[in-house]
This record gives sequence, C-alpha cells and structure tokens, in this order.
Amino acid sequence: MSDFDAVDVIRAKRDRQPLSDEQIDWVIAAYTRGDVAHEQMSALAMAILLNGMDRREIARWTAAMIASGERMSFDGLDRPTTDKHSTGGVGDKITLPLAPLVAACGAAVPQLSGRGLGHTGGTLDKLEAIPGWRATLTGPEFMSQLREVGAVICAASDKLAPADKLLYGQRDVTGTVESIPLIASSIMSKKIAEGTGALVLDVKVGSGAFMKDVDSARELAETMVALGADSGVRTVALLTNMQTPLGLTAGNALEVQESVDVLAGGGPDDVVELTLVLAREMLTAAGIEGVDPAERLKDGSAMDVWRAMILAQDGDPDAALPTAREAHVVPAPADGVLTRLDAFAVGVAAWRLGAGRARKEDPVQAGAGVQMHAKPGARVRGGEPLFTLHTDTPERFERALEALQDATTIAPDGARPDLLPLVIDRVG
Amino acid sequence: MSDFDAVDVIRAKRDRQPLSDEQIDWVIAAYTRGDVAHEQMSALAMAILLNGMDRREIARWTAAMIASGERMSFDGLDRPTTDKHSTGGVGDKITLPLAPLVAACGAAVPQLSGRGLGHTGGTLDKLEAIPGWRATLTGPEFMSQLREVGAVICAASDKLAPADKLLYGQRDVTGTVESIPLIASSIMSKKIAEGTGALVLDVKVGSGAFMKDVDSARELAETMVALGADSGVRTVALLTNMQTPLGLTAGNALEVQESVDVLAGGGPDDVVELTLVLAREMLTAAGIEGVDPAERLKDGSAMDVWRAMILAQDGDPDAALPTAREAHVVPAPADGVLTRLDAFAVGVAAWRLGAGRARKEDPVQAGAGVQMHAKPGARVRGGEPLFTLHTDTPERFERALEALQDATTIAPDGARPDLLPLVIDRVG
Repeated sequence: MSDFDAVDVIRAKRDRQPLSDEQIDWVIAAYTRGDVAHEQMSALAMAILLNGMDRREIARWTAAMIASGERMSFDGLDRPTTDKHSTGGVGDKITLPLAPLVAACGAAVPQLSGRGLGHTGGTLDKLEAIPGWRATLTGPEFMSQLREVGAVICAASDKLAPADKLLYGQRDVTGTVESIPLIASSIMSKKIAEGTGALVLDVKVGSGAFMKDVDSARELAETMVALGADSGVRTVALLTNMQTPLGLTAGNALEVQESVDVLAGGGPDDVVELTLVLAREMLTAAGIEGVDPAERLKDGSAMDVWRAMILAQDGDPDAALPTAREAHVVPAPADGVLTRLDAFAVGVAAWRLGAGRARKEDPVQAGAGVQMHAKPGARVRGGEPLFTLHTDTPERFERALEALQDATTIAPDGARPDLLPLVIDRVG
Repeated sequence: MSDFDAVDVIRAKRDRQPLSDEQIDWVIAAYTRGDVAHEQMSALAMAILLNGMDRREIARWTAAMIASGERMSFDGLDRPTTDKHSTGGVGDKITLPLAPLVAACGAAVPQLSGRGLGHTGGTLDKLEAIPGWRATLTGPEFMSQLREVGAVICAASDKLAPADKLLYGQRDVTGTVESIPLIASSIMSKKIAEGTGALVLDVKVGSGAFMKDVDSARELAETMVALGADSGVRTVALLTNMQTPLGLTAGNALEVQESVDVLAGGGPDDVVELTLVLAREMLTAAGIEGVDPAERLKDGSAMDVWRAMILAQDGDPDAALPTAREAHVVPAPADGVLTRLDAFAVGVAAWRLGAGRARKEDPVQAGAGVQMHAKPGARVRGGEPLFTLHTDTPERFERALEALQDATTIAPDGARPDLLPLVIDRVG
C-alpha cells in the first residue's frame, strides 16, 4: 500500500485515466490518516469534478470512505430498519413528520442527520428549536431509543465515514461540491455505514436544490441507487420538485410548527403528500405491507411517536416554540395569480434572516425565517401579505428583501404556474 | 478588493469562465497574505490546468505575481542588461559559460537561478560544487558585482514574486506543474521582476524536458514572448533539442568541468554551439552589435570574467573540483552506431546517483552524475565504455542502472540517428 504517491494518483485522474482500486483505497486511507495533504486532495477533487469517475471507481471510492471508519449494525433489532435521505431543499422539513410516521407503521427509523450550510436548512438545526432537545446521543442511547420508540433523529457519530467528513469540509471551500461522483459517494458512504436495511432517496430538482435540472438529478439518483444495491441496501430514489419551497415556512421553529401541524392531521398539502409518498416507499423497501400511513396520521399514533421521540432526547413537546423578536410583512405588489415562487430566493432570504449559517461555526436563530402566505397557483390581492419575514436582528431585513426582489411572478387572472409535478420520477 | 470570495473564483474557472482582472489581482494578493488557503489555490490551479487561461488572463496573472513582491531596477547601470532562461533539461550547463561570455562582450548579465528538483539539474547546485562559492548575495553585493564583473549568477531573493514561490512549491505536490499558463507566468513573473532589459528563452523540447513535443513548446514560447513584450522586456525564444543530453556530462562538478572546458576553448560541440547561438541572441536583444562571442571564447576574455565572477562569490576558480568516491563503467553491448541516447533516462540516472534531489530539503552530491562516452551519431564498440556512473553511495548504482536500461539504441553500421536539430525554431 505504501508504493503509491499522491501526485501519481492526481496526475492519473487529471489525465483522464481511471483510478485503480488500489489507488483509491490508498488515497482515501492515506488522506484519513493525514499522509495525503488537504491541498493534494482538493486538486484531486477538482480533477474528479472535471474529468468524472466511472461506476467502478465511484463504488470503490464509496467503499473506501466506509472503510475509513466504523459500521453500525441493527442485527439485534426485532423490526426492519428503513431510512430516508434528502439531497436538501428549501422548507424541506419532511424528516420531522416522516420518521415518527414510519415508526408508527412498524419500521425502525435510524435517521442520522446534519446541520444546514448555505441556503438549505438542516434537520438538527430545526429540532434544536425545541426547548431542551439534544442532537447528540451515545451508542447505547441510540440503540435503546430505536428499540423502544422506533425512531431516532440525531447527529451522526464522528466514527462513521470520517474520510467523508474531512473531504466534505474541504469541498465546501474549494468549489468542488457539485460533482455527481463525489455527492453520491458522500451520501451513500454515510448511509451504508449507518447500517440501514432500506433507503429512500429524495433527490431534489430545481432552483432550491443542488441539481438544477432533471437529467443531472436522474444521473445522481441512478448512481446512488446502484451504490445502495451493490452494498445490499434496498434503495429507491424519487426525483421531487424543488423549484418552489415545500410548505409555507422556511426556518427552524417555523418548520417544526408546520411539521407538528402535519402530525396533527393538518399542514400544507404538498408537505402531507410528500410525507405520505415517502412513507409508503420506506415501508415497501422495508418489506412492510398492509399498513396505510395516512391512517396513522389520522389516528394520532404518528403524533404519539413524535412526542416519545422528542422526550427521549430531552425535548419538551409541549413547550412553546421560540419566536423571533421582529417581523416584517411583504405585501403582494398587484392582484393576480402567483405563478412562480422561487425556492432559491426564499432559501437565501431565510438564511440571511439568521435561519442558516455561512460557516460551520456560526450559530443559527431558532425563530428566524420566511413565512409564505401563498403558493404557486393561488390568487393574491395587491397590498395583502405575501411573505412575513422573522428575525431577532432587524438589520438583516434589507438583505433578505434583496434576495426576494425577483422571487415571485404574479400573472393576470386565469394564468397557471408552469411547474413540474411534486414527484417527477422514480428510480430503483 | 474584499468583495471577492475564493470559492467564487474557483467556480468561475471550473465552469470555464474567464477570470476578471479584479478576480486575478484579488486571488493572488489574498493567497500571498494567507487569506486564500493552499487547498483553495490547488483546486484553482487544477481548474486552470484543465480549463486553461486566455492571453489576457495569463498577462494579468503574471502582473499580479510580480506585484506580490519587489521589482529590481538596473537604471543606474552603464551597460544594457540581458538574461537567459532555460526551461530545464539534462546536462544543461549552458548558463555557466554563457553568462561570463556575454559579459565579456559588453552586456551586464543578472542571472537569478534556482536549484534542481527531479531529473533536471539546477544551476546553483552545479556552481556550489566549486569550493567556497556561495549562491546568496545581498542587494548591494549583487549590484556591485554586476557593475564591476558584468555577470552574476546567484539565488533569487525571496522578495521577487513571492506568490510564485508559494504557488510553485504547491504545484509540485499537487500534480499541477504541467500547465502552459502556469509555467509561462511563473517564469516570466520572476524574470520581469528581476528587471532585465532583454531576455532570451531556451525552451527545451523532448524526453528530458517538460515539453515533450514541438507544438506545446512553441505554445509555451509564444506565450512567454508575448508576456515579455507586454512588459517592455525585449524577449525572444529558441526551441532547442532535449531528446538527448547536452554535452557529455550530467551532474554538478562534472558539468562545471565541462563548462570550464568550453571557456578554455574546448568542450563538446553541442555545448559550444548552443552557448554561441544564445550569446548572439542575448547581445542582439540588448542592442549590442559588432562583437563576435566566438572571438571572446578564443581570446580568453570570457574565461577572465568567469574567474572574476567565481572569486567575487568567494569561490576558488583554481581549486580541484570534488570527485565522487565510487565509479562504475557501463560498456556498450554491441558494435554499431549509437542512434539514440535518451535525455530523460540519463537525467533520472544522474538524479538517482545523488546529483539531484527528490525533495527541496535534500542535499545533493557534488561529484555524483553520469559521464557519457558517446553521443548519437558516434560509432561504438561492444565492451568499450558507454557511460561512467559516479556516486559517493554505491548502493545507488543499481537503481541508476535500471534507469539506463532502455536509454540507448545501437544500430548497424551506416544507420543515422533520427534527431531534431539542436536549434529547432525561433519565436520572437
């Protein structure tokens, strides 16, 4: 293994040669132990981004990232495990109602999540808006909660795919995020190491997502489904619409409230629909049949699991959620039909209001974010509220308003929005 | 200037957009002061290597590297300055006889040189084989030697183009050396900052050079000539043959001896010829006419400048040169005509014998290297010496011999080598 040299590996990819299995194993292991420098890995990442990797290389790269750390196992559990991963979008709070709902249907959901960076929110940031809730669990706490409650949403251990953690932090500052081989191997190495038996991928498409068009989203989905299958994880991917935000809120406490509304049997139609579609896929992938998740929303059993899940992590499900100190209303400029509400613009506005972070170390504001009062297709009246912006730091309103400047189109009555369907395609 | 972000600059080049003047100025300045990290610059260098830069970008990049440090000026000098730069080859000791020869013809030669890395030797390493000689001069020492002796070969100050120094060290370990925009801007930023009025570039072509083919060498030459012209430096480039080594030696003391032979009126034909061709170009570029450098070799005045130049830097021109402790003779395997003697193989052998270094910190052996007993076109006899290898550390012979395994072709009598001419083309 020591006969390799980082420069030779970089040069090979730079010169469009496929990397050998041995080169990939060596470079990931050497990078993890610090023998390949960050500057070498970032040159290699750029060469991969520009010259690509074939399926064999991606599979080996993923396996090497998994091998850089520990693998979890749920062999002792009495019910099948199933998990969901979203590639990230604006207003994407689906994990919050989904995990307890699927647990209420009889599966175990070991959902290791992350924090937000940039304009997309993070599941852990959202849950941390709940007073007392903690993201970090010990291994035994994790296993006992999964066994007793059926659902856990918590931070991934540093021991899972540490090479991915190192590389991800670096890609973020070196312009090497947008590479399908690197995105696919990053997501799948964590999910495979996590040990889930089944996995549903929600691959977002549109302005608010990494993948701006259906073709590249499909390529990413196919790549990840193949990686899952190779590793014995039953994997399916949905391509879903991220041209416009999910639901009517983008922000941490705002999205928790919307999720609780869904668990209580209400909530925006698109959030309910996507939660149910993903729940059915997760159950099918886990081999669970004959349970209708819509019933479990109605009969309150999903809400029961939610409450137990929050309590198990020291959160108070009955506490009032934090609200921001200042609000600013943006009125609709004219009468008409809202035909466009841009996900990226809303995401950037929420981020600038304090809901997200520019750097990993930054804190987030629990109450900050954007409330939307109409979704595409709705009729709006000039002067009535279109958005309400929330923040603890009102000097942020100006830049948030800038982000929203061209976020909407209001067309004459009778016009219809030109939107992709909520679920665009299914791969797997 | 602070409105830029390294990731945006990297992404622009990654996505094949030209970098703006402001982006280039910012990224080089921020890198020099440590605000752009090495891992970011190496991702950018890889994107430049793979996606290229246009002429405007290369010119601005070069100007920004010059602006990262100090510029020298020879305004007070009573004779024109002229300099030469070689892109590096095997056995390329031409600077040693050339600088004193051109000074003997009436020009001032401010030759800032480097050390060797990899299979090509470094001018400073060669001169350091002379007992007592020192590479580092203060600014006043440099100016007074240039005024009184007419020629200085010494180490470049750290204050000239520090961005280039940083970036070069990094390119070497990140597989980003072989980029024409980066090579051209690296060479020309140093030479323009050095303040020479005229410059002759010796762009090597062939196995022993960075540029393996005439087309890429011509592109590099044209890029550098344009950069020189833009900066008011009269610049001309020759493309010269590096398929086979220059002269009959590769190694530090061995090459000093061969250089002294040339200054004494002897030496191998190719070394004498290239020295004279380059001397004439340097003189013409400096506007000096009516002096024949061949005369200055014959009448001993070039040797006089050499001795004064070595003495001025505390070297002893009369001291015996160091010799290696061990020698090993490689005989010709058969009778015939030597039609091929590969420069790269000889360079690697000399390097492995101890003449060069694998890392910047490594020492070199003054006496180590390869002596060649025949050049392409010569008739050889089986069993008679083809090479003599020299080293202080005989355990190095084996790997040096491996490098020479396929270094030569011996063809039946009457065969002729298929070689490019010594001077292939002229650009300027």
